[in-house]
Amino acid sequence: MAQDLVIGIDVGGQTSKCGIVDARGTVVAQTVIRTDTYDTVEPFIAELAEALNRIIAEAKAEGQIRGIGVGAPNGNYYTGCIESAPNLKWGHNKVEFAKLLSEQMNGIPVSLTNDANAAAVGEMTYGAARGMKNFIMITLGTGVGSGIVINGEVVYGHDGFAGELGHTCAVRHNGRQCGCGKHGCLEAYCSAMGVARTAREWLEMSDEPSELRSLDRITSKDVYEAAKDGDKMALKIFEFTGRILGEKLADFIEFSAPEAIVLFGGLARSKEFLTEPILEAMNANVLPLWRNKVKLIYSSLKESDAAILGASALAWEL
Amino acid sequence: MAQDLVIGIDVGGQTSKCGIVDARGTVVAQTVIRTDTYDTVEPFIAELAEALNRIIAEAKAEGQIRGIGVGAPNGNYYTGCIESAPNLKWGHNKVEFAKLLSEQMNGIPVSLTNDANAAAVGEMTYGAARGMKNFIMITLGTGVGSGIVINGEVVYGHDGFAGELGHTCAVRHNGRQCGCGKHGCLEAYCSAMGVARTAREWLEMSDEPSELRSLDRITSKDVYEAAKDGDKMALKIFEFTGRILGEKLADFIEFSAPEAIVLFGGLARSKEFLTEPILEAMNANVLPLWRNKVKLIYSSLKESDAAILGASALAWEL
Repeated sequence: MAQDLVIGIDVGGQTSKCGIVDARGTVVAQTVIRTDTYDTVEPFIAELAEALNRIIAEAKAEGQIRGIGVGAPNGNYYTGCIESAPNLKWGHNKVEFAKLLSEQMNGIPVSLTNDANAAAVGEMTYGAARGMKNFIMITLGTGVGSGIVINGEVVYGHDGFAGELGHTCAVRHNGRQCGCGKHGCLEAYCSAMGVARTAREWLEMSDEPSELRSLDRITSKDVYEAAKDGDKMALKIFEFTGRILGEKLADFIEFSAPEAIVLFGGLARSKEFLTEPILEAMNANVLPLWRNKVKLIYSSLKESDAAILGASALAWEL
Repeated sequence: MAQDLVIGIDVGGQTSKCGIVDARGTVVAQTVIRTDTYDTVEPFIAELAEALNRIIAEAKAEGQIRGIGVGAPNGNYYTGCIESAPNLKWGHNKVEFAKLLSEQMNGIPVSLTNDANAAAVGEMTYGAARGMKNFIMITLGTGVGSGIVINGEVVYGHDGFAGELGHTCAVRHNGRQCGCGKHGCLEAYCSAMGVARTAREWLEMSDEPSELRSLDRITSKDVYEAAKDGDKMALKIFEFTGRILGEKLADFIEFSAPEAIVLFGGLARSKEFLTEPILEAMNANVLPLWRNKVKLIYSSLKESDAAILGASALAWEL
């Protein structure tokens, strides 16, 4: 029987999404299991294999799975391991995830990388970057991740951990502390968390009126809603966020001369407020030879499928 | 007869160095011609071909030249053209350099790239980066150039112009104007020109004693000599220069996770004063996972041969 299906798994801190995907990028079956109820990896892998076998049976796909792709925090493509992932209860040490899962799945090959790299492969295989050989994917979620594609291949670097653009320096002096321990990282400003932090800081530092003042615990979604209502402070927060991101994108363009920057993730949904300041800062800060030449595009994948598709795309390369 | 020789040409603003190189990286014959006495490219190419034929005859290498590699400012690997090179009298418009030279040399294939990329290929083929598949070459000359190698290949990007790390932003606010028109570029601080500029600025801004005060027109070499004499301001200038470079290297590591950073060029000869501040800033600013793991090395190529070797190495890939 032809092996023309793959499985994609997106391992998150709370839940893991799994799906069976065909060559056209249709998710033909999917399920979700909890990630955070396990203290060690073995019972999680056992439960994961059970869930996969369930959807394989459901899709009548026995013997048709060519490979399994996994996107996971701190996933290393070279070693197939998850290493020191702070958000995974069982991931604090080095976990041989790909090997363990393959063993549980009767030897179906497993390929693993971090979530942002998986998103980049997904975008190249099924999404907005189809046909592109040089682009940079920036995921604007709780944090800022990145997947860099050069010559049609994801950049893994010497050790498998390349593409940490969220931790390049956006604010050199007196920058905010980032979750990684450094100060001034892009992630501390241009993630969903960063936007909420900007709002809280600005509210504290001024007495400018804003509908955000009435809220108890501000999220980036609140800032988005306020911006839609025309709230001046919320609009300025997006301008500030877009400018910082655009300035750093100029640096990234000078590194790898991509055809496009692809934005993805929860915060990218605020594109109506982000696009203009990003483009303005990016083009003002990049060398003239790239000015107004590098495209800024948004992921075209259906959000609910994107994580699974991204991970599954890895499996086609197996 | 076996074709086991290549030619390397380093096109500079004033002179162009040419040499015949064997597979072990020995320059078996070489010559230099002027670049700046021509207003159009055709007579320059004619003179260049004549010079090459002369050294080919001298080395008894007729019929043994496998290819010609050229390193030139704003050289584009994809198109073989030199585009808008401000330092080349005949290079202001687009010049089909590789095609023209190949025609003059009886169809010997010609490969062309910018000088920093050529240096990176040279370092990988004959020098300090031999055997490395992931490294970043930074050339600290009059300006700051870069050649990025990922998976054993030079990064050319979507358009052939990737690797302009000298024009990434080192000082975001009130940064110095750079020759490219932008402000705060790495090149404006960490090139030979940048070091001289720091000296002039600091002398003007303070009345701290320094032997540099007695000089009429300060160069980076003067600053180096003064530092060797123990001059405090000169030593602080190198500390400042090294710190700025180290801070940016941290960003670059987070992009492509290289095994090593390779420094090359006139200013790199001041390594006794630069190494410590570079490493300190690089390791303080990079994510913990790369701290004290990425090597900082200096080109091991003989300076007089390096430009020819770098360009010639391109030709082996033809």
